[in-house]
Amino acid sequence: MRYYYRYEEFLLDCQKLTQNIEWEFDTIIGISRGGLTLSHLLGEYYNIRKVYAVNTIGYDDTSKRDYVEIFNIPNLDESQKVLIVDDIVDSGDTLKLVLDTLSQKYPQCNFRSASLFYKDTALIQPDWYAQEAKSWIDFFWTIDLKSNQ
Amino acid sequence: MRYYYRYEEFLLDCQKLTQNIEWEFDTIIGISRGGLTLSHLLGEYYNIRKVYAVNTIGYDDTSKRDYVEIFNIPNLDESQKVLIVDDIVDSGDTLKLVLDTLSQKYPQCNFRSASLFYKDTALIQPDWYAQEAKSWIDFFWTIDLKSNQ
Repeated sequence: MRYYYRYEEFLLDCQKLTQNIEWEFDTIIGISRGGLTLSHLLGEYYNIRKVYAVNTIGYDDTSKRDYVEIFNIPNLDESQKVLIVDDIVDSGDTLKLVLDTLSQKYPQCNFRSASLFYKDTALIQPDWYAQEAKSWIDFFWTIDLKSNQ
Repeated sequence: MRYYYRYEEFLLDCQKLTQNIEWEFDTIIGISRGGLTLSHLLGEYYNIRKVYAVNTIGYDDTSKRDYVEIFNIPNLDESQKVLIVDDIVDSGDTLKLVLDTLSQKYPQCNFRSASLFYKDTALIQPDWYAQEAKSWIDFFWTIDLKSNQ
């Protein structure tokens, strides 16, 4: 079962997030690639110019357990309250790694997280999310440009 | 005169860009915030995982000329061909600074640039662009979430 997540629904979910996030933050970090569009719209909405990205890469390793690596960590010396955003918290591995790594590197910062989708089997729950994920999601940013050709 | 640039038109412009960009690149850098959504869709389309962001901040200084600063420069040690993307090349200051800085820091990389809009008075022209900018553009990522509330 695949669910097509269109731009209009994304907008409604962004709206839901902005209504629920009762927290003033000064920085947004989008987890690339999935969180980039969300970070962009939230940055515009809150008029926050410190919209950064961080990269992760997941490895399927047959000899040991799967793992995720993080790179291109933004400089947060000038930040205090940081909202980390992603499209979906699925296993939770990625969000946990990002939160753990950034908290360790920038102990002066306060971190919270938001996502569009959350799977209740994930090992970590974001502070805010718009929907529970029930099936595979085809996000418009993955689908629309390909199907338009 | 303001022009509302909606998601559907953005998709058509992305399509135009992908049809014109006859260059194989391994990395995309979106100039934050304006280039983030474009970098996301292009990264998905080309199946490129190395989608990075870079930040710039412009200063209006009354005592000297306006200037732009760049920060959060991604690590490009593993990159060779890098496409830099932004929503609009207006004065060209930002794109020029990003290109100059990255070229100096990573001389082994080949850089090209693409934008949705380009103003012909800019001091630098991107390698590819979708439209010439004739008026002030209200991008959907700036407008839609606010007007939906």
